[in-house]
Amino acid sequence: MKAIAVRQGDNQPQVIEIPKPTVNAGEILVRTLRVGIDGTDYEVINGTHGEYPANTDYQILGHEAIGVVENANDTELEVGDLVVPTVRRPCGKKNEYFERGIPDMAPAGSYLERGISGAHGYMSEYFTSPPEYLVRIPREFHKTGFLVEPISNSEKAIEHAFASRSAFDWTPESAIVLGNGPLGLLTLAMLETKFERLYCLGRRDRPDPTIDIIERFGATYVDSREIPVNEIPEAYEAMDFVYEATGYAKHAYETLDALAPNGVGVLLGIPGDWTFEINGGRLHREMVLENKAILGSVNSHIPHFNAAKETLAEFPEWFLKSIITNVYPPEKVDMAFETGDEKIKTVIEFDNL
Amino acid sequence: MKAIAVRQGDNQPQVIEIPKPTVNAGEILVRTLRVGIDGTDYEVINGTHGEYPANTDYQILGHEAIGVVENANDTELEVGDLVVPTVRRPCGKKNEYFERGIPDMAPAGSYLERGISGAHGYMSEYFTSPPEYLVRIPREFHKTGFLVEPISNSEKAIEHAFASRSAFDWTPESAIVLGNGPLGLLTLAMLETKFERLYCLGRRDRPDPTIDIIERFGATYVDSREIPVNEIPEAYEAMDFVYEATGYAKHAYETLDALAPNGVGVLLGIPGDWTFEINGGRLHREMVLENKAILGSVNSHIPHFNAAKETLAEFPEWFLKSIITNVYPPEKVDMAFETGDEKIKTVIEFDNL
Repeated sequence: MKAIAVRQGDNQPQVIEIPKPTVNAGEILVRTLRVGIDGTDYEVINGTHGEYPANTDYQILGHEAIGVVENANDTELEVGDLVVPTVRRPCGKKNEYFERGIPDMAPAGSYLERGISGAHGYMSEYFTSPPEYLVRIPREFHKTGFLVEPISNSEKAIEHAFASRSAFDWTPESAIVLGNGPLGLLTLAMLETKFERLYCLGRRDRPDPTIDIIERFGATYVDSREIPVNEIPEAYEAMDFVYEATGYAKHAYETLDALAPNGVGVLLGIPGDWTFEINGGRLHREMVLENKAILGSVNSHIPHFNAAKETLAEFPEWFLKSIITNVYPPEKVDMAFETGDEKIKTVIEFDNL
Repeated sequence: MKAIAVRQGDNQPQVIEIPKPTVNAGEILVRTLRVGIDGTDYEVINGTHGEYPANTDYQILGHEAIGVVENANDTELEVGDLVVPTVRRPCGKKNEYFERGIPDMAPAGSYLERGISGAHGYMSEYFTSPPEYLVRIPREFHKTGFLVEPISNSEKAIEHAFASRSAFDWTPESAIVLGNGPLGLLTLAMLETKFERLYCLGRRDRPDPTIDIIERFGATYVDSREIPVNEIPEAYEAMDFVYEATGYAKHAYETLDALAPNGVGVLLGIPGDWTFEINGGRLHREMVLENKAILGSVNSHIPHFNAAKETLAEFPEWFLKSIITNVYPPEKVDMAFETGDEKIKTVIEFDNL
């Protein structure tokens, strides 16, 4: 069967031919429909994030998938069920976080991530998975269900952020998403019902399809080349909620300045090392005197996938049409991984329902 | 009546003679029993924190008080009731945070703080207060009840920290308190039942009364001159919970290194400006990949005072005896405000029950 993989030292994804997977006991065989491309895939390709699976010199990419059950292997699932797989898997060792149902909270090194770290991803005509890592979704989502995984990451991040403000009567009104990539836009769509005033930060000139989406949601586009994050309160207003999706290292600290009293910032991007100066005394003091919170959030698990299904069902059709800009068959792998401002979400289509 | 105040430009507390307060409608007259001294009082004395009350050239100190109702002024309180006052007061303007019962979450500039900012404190033979800012406590606490206010600040901070981890099944085991001053030791005592392994950071040589208390609680004393906060995981273990009470600016960032995956740090100290370098990329990345949280917490309100009453009642007697090291009448103001390693909590005693 065909798979899209990156070979060690290659920094370039390609179509490879590998055997169709053997279905072991306790595993489901899934026929892949669509697999989304996201920023992490580029980090895997460039070797800046993740790890090759043991004993192989290639990594099958892809962790945002939707497929259809081909062999249910005597489980509760049925042939024809539409499923979305989760990403993290135990790595042999006993891992209490998996046993407790919170692998998304497991410390680094104690898990594999399919398509990212130590395990093959879903960009192949078929993949296998134990059923407990598959979330069933209605058949109407056969074209969009691959978005459940990225949405689930924001479900978790938003849940943690709101939990951090649950010890008092928090009444947030303003929120900004830092980053107008697909995850940023999906999150903006999720926040629309939760906040009265929404903002989204990017660094693009008009006309731009992401700015069109931002504004169609009634949100304000903030150009970071004109307004750095720490100047947002002066230029617009202080934010009750900041969602950081760019991975720009300084945003973690500038977020503290962007926050309103009692606000919370949640970080999802993954920057590399970078040493710089901050007024650490002032930021520390203002966090205290204004009861500010900031937290990191990574990955997601079954409850977040289930929440994401509901969220996906509520997204307006125009939005889904606008965000899934490019659909390629696996053979067009080179075009699929080319980046460009006209592309928002690119998806590889392996098959149809 | 006698009061302990600092005159503008004086940087030295002194006993002054002022008229006994007039009891206005809706106010209670309280006869002061004891008022504790804490770090904030020194900041007020030195002019680094707070503001003088409008139209006066002196500030009556003290915000950790206990007293007895002298004139209940037709309220629900009764003459003879023992009461602890809260700290924040509205400053004339309409303030929704007070109306919503969460003045501790009010933004800077929207409130006064008795004894600290814009309002006189409790270090006088009598003070007045609306009844809604007085918390009644049992008479057995007439010598220790002034500790309800500092304990309440930690009640709030701990509540917020745990709330921030409430979106998943958090099972913390290890905690460190940064700072072995009175607030640090009170907090250590509060954490004893919540964590299996406790640590407390200071910079003192043995023999030292605070180290004795730390060890009597079964906690480990960490000398910050030997082990900086960011090296705690290597020297001891990564911490599920870090409580920062020193106000040392770098601790906010070193706390991120001290935290275990999924851990939370809460900051209560108030540092001045200080610009320094951090590896902001690494800290940001590790917050994300390990789901870490950090939050600031200031002040407290009625529910935290009520929780603090319960907490105080559960403290072992040896601890209360060890921590209240110095009791002075107001005339001994100079001795009371002298600092020294043999002093833990100093209290001014205005009267007895």
